Amino acid sequence: MSALLESYAAGSWFRAEDEGRPLLDAVTGEEVARISSTGLDLAAMTDHARIVGGPAVRELTFHQRGAVLKAVAKLLGADKDELYALSARTGATLRDSQVDVDGGIGTLFSYASKASRELPADTIVLDGDTEQLGRTGVFLGQHLYTSRPGIAVQINAFNFPVWGMLEKLAPAFLAGLPTIVKPASQGAWLTEAVVRRIIDSGLMPEGSLQLLCGSPDGLLDQLGPQDSVAFTGSAATGALLRQHAAVVHGGVQLGVEADSLNCSILGPDVTADDPELDLFVKGVVTEMTVKAGQKCTAIRRAIVPAAMADEVVAAISARLAKVTVGDPGSEGVRMGALASLAQRDDVRKAISTLRSSAEIVFGDPDRVDVVGADAERGAFMSPVLLRATEGATEPHEVEAFGPVSTVIAYESLDEAIALAALGRGSLAGSLVTHDPQVARQVTLGLAPWHGRLLVLDRDDAPESTGHGSPLPVLVHGGPGRAGGGEELGGIRAVLHHMQRTAVQASPDMLTAITGQWTKGAAQRVDEQHPFRKSLAELRIGDTIRSASRTVTLDDIDRFAELTGDTFYAHTDAEAAAANPLFGGIVAHGYLVVSIAAGLFVDPDPGPVLANFGVDHLRLLTPVKAGDTIDVVLTVKQITPRASADYGEVRWDAVVSNADGAAVATYDVLTLVAKTLDNQEG
Amino acid sequence: MSALLESYAAGSWFRAEDEGRPLLDAVTGEEVARISSTGLDLAAMTDHARIVGGPAVRELTFHQRGAVLKAVAKLLGADKDELYALSARTGATLRDSQVDVDGGIGTLFSYASKASRELPADTIVLDGDTEQLGRTGVFLGQHLYTSRPGIAVQINAFNFPVWGMLEKLAPAFLAGLPTIVKPASQGAWLTEAVVRRIIDSGLMPEGSLQLLCGSPDGLLDQLGPQDSVAFTGSAATGALLRQHAAVVHGGVQLGVEADSLNCSILGPDVTADDPELDLFVKGVVTEMTVKAGQKCTAIRRAIVPAAMADEVVAAISARLAKVTVGDPGSEGVRMGALASLAQRDDVRKAISTLRSSAEIVFGDPDRVDVVGADAERGAFMSPVLLRATEGATEPHEVEAFGPVSTVIAYESLDEAIALAALGRGSLAGSLVTHDPQVARQVTLGLAPWHGRLLVLDRDDAPESTGHGSPLPVLVHGGPGRAGGGEELGGIRAVLHHMQRTAVQASPDMLTAITGQWTKGAAQRVDEQHPFRKSLAELRIGDTIRSASRTVTLDDIDRFAELTGDTFYAHTDAEAAAANPLFGGIVAHGYLVVSIAAGLFVDPDPGPVLANFGVDHLRLLTPVKAGDTIDVVLTVKQITPRASADYGEVRWDAVVSNADGAAVATYDVLTLVAKTLDNQEG
Repeated sequence: MSALLESYAAGSWFRAEDEGRPLLDAVTGEEVARISSTGLDLAAMTDHARIVGGPAVRELTFHQRGAVLKAVAKLLGADKDELYALSARTGATLRDSQVDVDGGIGTLFSYASKASRELPADTIVLDGDTEQLGRTGVFLGQHLYTSRPGIAVQINAFNFPVWGMLEKLAPAFLAGLPTIVKPASQGAWLTEAVVRRIIDSGLMPEGSLQLLCGSPDGLLDQLGPQDSVAFTGSAATGALLRQHAAVVHGGVQLGVEADSLNCSILGPDVTADDPELDLFVKGVVTEMTVKAGQKCTAIRRAIVPAAMADEVVAAISARLAKVTVGDPGSEGVRMGALASLAQRDDVRKAISTLRSSAEIVFGDPDRVDVVGADAERGAFMSPVLLRATEGATEPHEVEAFGPVSTVIAYESLDEAIALAALGRGSLAGSLVTHDPQVARQVTLGLAPWHGRLLVLDRDDAPESTGHGSPLPVLVHGGPGRAGGGEELGGIRAVLHHMQRTAVQASPDMLTAITGQWTKGAAQRVDEQHPFRKSLAELRIGDTIRSASRTVTLDDIDRFAELTGDTFYAHTDAEAAAANPLFGGIVAHGYLVVSIAAGLFVDPDPGPVLANFGVDHLRLLTPVKAGDTIDVVLTVKQITPRASADYGEVRWDAVVSNADGAAVATYDVLTLVAKTLDNQEG
Repeated sequence: MSALLESYAAGSWFRAEDEGRPLLDAVTGEEVARISSTGLDLAAMTDHARIVGGPAVRELTFHQRGAVLKAVAKLLGADKDELYALSARTGATLRDSQVDVDGGIGTLFSYASKASRELPADTIVLDGDTEQLGRTGVFLGQHLYTSRPGIAVQINAFNFPVWGMLEKLAPAFLAGLPTIVKPASQGAWLTEAVVRRIIDSGLMPEGSLQLLCGSPDGLLDQLGPQDSVAFTGSAATGALLRQHAAVVHGGVQLGVEADSLNCSILGPDVTADDPELDLFVKGVVTEMTVKAGQKCTAIRRAIVPAAMADEVVAAISARLAKVTVGDPGSEGVRMGALASLAQRDDVRKAISTLRSSAEIVFGDPDRVDVVGADAERGAFMSPVLLRATEGATEPHEVEAFGPVSTVIAYESLDEAIALAALGRGSLAGSLVTHDPQVARQVTLGLAPWHGRLLVLDRDDAPESTGHGSPLPVLVHGGPGRAGGGEELGGIRAVLHHMQRTAVQASPDMLTAITGQWTKGAAQRVDEQHPFRKSLAELRIGDTIRSASRTVTLDDIDRFAELTGDTFYAHTDAEAAAANPLFGGIVAHGYLVVSIAAGLFVDPDPGPVLANFGVDHLRLLTPVKAGDTIDVVLTVKQITPRASADYGEVRWDAVVSNADGAAVATYDVLTLVAKTLDNQEG
């Protein structure tokens, strides 16, 4: 008897009390492992996540959480070959395994990088600008995201045992949530191997990752309003989860990502001579054969101009004829087995339904030549291409979750868009065209029905990742039949796991709550110039109130002469007088901010290393010759960089004139040494 | 018999075939109107919204939709007195009516203003930056929001017949959706009066607003995956809607905003001598009595330090004793009637449940002195204050939707936060404290359980809008028991109604699809300098490639001398050499962008009126004496202003050195005359 998969629960590996049920190799039909969760204490798992895991994750800043993900990615990267070997037993070719294993690891790296670049060195995220809620500015509103004191539960599909888990884990962990992973049974040996490596490494805080191998029955009953379930799988199971009491009454947040009837549209501009025809055909064949078509994002509907349909069918069929099916380990094999014999039965049933309004134009669902394996024991199947009859409905409604696609003809672009919409919401769509007008019309027409759209042509093809590949930086999910959920998309997915709250308070209170200086809050002027303070010494609210300076016509003339910026508003009194906004010579905006820098700078070497940028400069009041200006510079945000001896300081800058009117407002970005030892001079 | 309310359906006013059921004046018990939807063709309504209303709204830009909302706000503002009179018959005092009527109109104005300032002059919204998906930049990702070809259905509560409708209508309309409003029967005469005014005005495109007076049975069956239902009401009805087939299987998006057990916490720092105690007491009394406590956001739980509980109970009771109950039209009346006798029965029942773990310390649920009305016929009730026993559970679970609140004592801040969380998710919470540390700890502890939090003290009190007031610019909604929905929050609510899609394409295709120039897309250099083109003539992609200029040490010296910016990196060769980022004298960043302006500017008077700002300036490569730089300036986005003769042009600016390395990247913002007639010179 093969090994019984274990669950990682409440701090230790759990082995079920019974023998479990066998999981079979998709290629050979041999037993790979057994699975059971009999006797597993689910309440202890959720308690452990809540009491141990959650607080441990939330103690870390986003940057520290990102560093953990990066370390996990490196750890798994070192073990890829062993993971590929386990993956092959799911029926996957090496290329399929790379999509799963390397794709998962790449997602971790991507999130680690996004965390350090796009999230603060903190545990909360501010959302949008401060809203002034009254006349004088003593009452403000600020949206912020905080971590929920809850649990992220994953219920995953069988097709990506590694990526499916890691793409959900990364954003949940960054959001401060402990995760409980429930893989599909088929292929769970691979997920278990990954989790075991992570747990053994000790890289993730205890309780932040648990694994449930076996039945999830009863798990949702343990969840409450701060918890979420991310489900990937069939629309039917998604609907069942939606009706669970925990979701209907208990406030559990449910995200559903269901397989969908994705389309690829060939533009009407594409002729047989264009490279786009080949790109389209390759795309369809790739999506039919990678993972033997067992991808939520695969192209199920190839929507083509009626005049091109024969040609497209012939070209796809010719390519499919070259696809060798068999043992993924055998030389030349392009497509492996389906995940299981049961899965193959389901696909054959779906094809039989499709045939009521489509005819098979390539392949036989019941017969395939197999290389290096026993066609009877492994879940092998030929790619099958169908061609829809006019007005067909089944191809828009029935999903064959295997190497199956249907060609559908359209007469006009409006019809193509309408056909795509018959899928009632998809994860991914694509359009192959080299005509910008077609691209605009079809993309905007399809967008409300899709989570992701690829516009493919000769220009982006060299770098295109293809129709079916979700990317960590782009949202993955789709409306309607595709489940209505949204995963990935960079930091978007992190924020989905957090609670957005509008906080109303005074500027001082907002500053205390958010850890960022808020306009109107107290400003602290020390004897010491803030440019003399290291990152460790600087405090939010530290302020420079500069001396004032009168801007002269001579300053403006000299600046124009030095920079070459002789725009008439600065140089020609008569023309400037006719300008409706100025009514006379004004100082250059760049002169104003340059003089402001001269007013606030402390010139000697010190911890401030550089001004590396300016954000959101608005020139609000013209400065005329003779106007006197000063500047107030206040520390707004301090962000140490983990990988350097310095960090970023964001300063609020307000340049005012003698009337007290704001002349210019902006943020100044500087790099500041962490300690005085790191400073220069 | 009173008038039968009509529905506005499929382009005309519909009158039911039967007599309908009576709706009673909350104060006098007299019949105000009758209501029925018998015979109403719901499918015709949804068809009309889909075929006529939706396309008409989506033809308009966001700015045009905002202008419609502004016109509607002005229209209703002219008729306020008539609306107040209808509102009084719901039991509302004038102040209550203002919250409803003026609050609704203010929401329209706020959204109109946000649309013009924060949304583009377009029909799609870009979300976030472009993501480079490959090495060379030919394959990019861009998230965008498009309008769904669907319908927004409102199912509203009885307590705010005007605001409840307008706060949902404004964001849905801006998002490009037609709306079907289904008011609660009680008070529907007021909603009908508002809709009638809007329809009669012809301000909104036909089909973009329909009204269903009566039963919504069967309406959800008409909806699909592009449609949404926004429900405000009880958690129990919300749960029923969640189980509707249209939601479970049909992909209809459901937002629930349920009444919740909101709390207000008195900080442990507040003593009897602090103004915060009075602010807390006033807040509780206001929330108990405005709209007779029939507000989803009212304070149901007053959580106070145990040592202060007696004092707080006494102070609240003393204030409540001064609240005169009666006919809203009578002199001195501070609190009107509940919406109906049935509603009063429900509140009495809830109080009786609360009494199992709380004692009444003010008021008698069954007796009240009434001014100017018949206490038997009107739905009057005394405010009722309870005080919870230790470990009480009912006050955290049972909502009395009337003038009822419970005082609950806490010993520590952690306990206060834990007590608040027992409400399992609320719309609004408040904290009254003048201690910044208390503010931070409690706010971040409560935030995951709340959609909105007010931190009240002596500083923001003068402008505070209070615990219970949702504001158009802040999100309204809450997790868990509060329904999990999110409304308002400025543009956030508009985007909730739109579909976010990740588009992958080449730079040229992205430019064609989004209407904004994308880095890497074609740049068009004409003979004519783009500064000579009016807004009408400028095109996305119009480009200036400047001559180059060598920056000399003399330039740097003169700039330092002129501006006063003598930072050592620009003036002290030895110290600059020791700077880890520069390793020698570098030009000021402001000098670089000033020289760039000198290189790209066309100095003579023309359609470019001003440079009013710079966004996202990043200084990427130091410029040393002797380095030669040039600049490329490209039109990225064009935004005409509806109210001016000019518009905004956003230019992409890239300053490069002779090696082709980017020295500085930023956006330049200019104001440009719409036509050459508006130019200067």
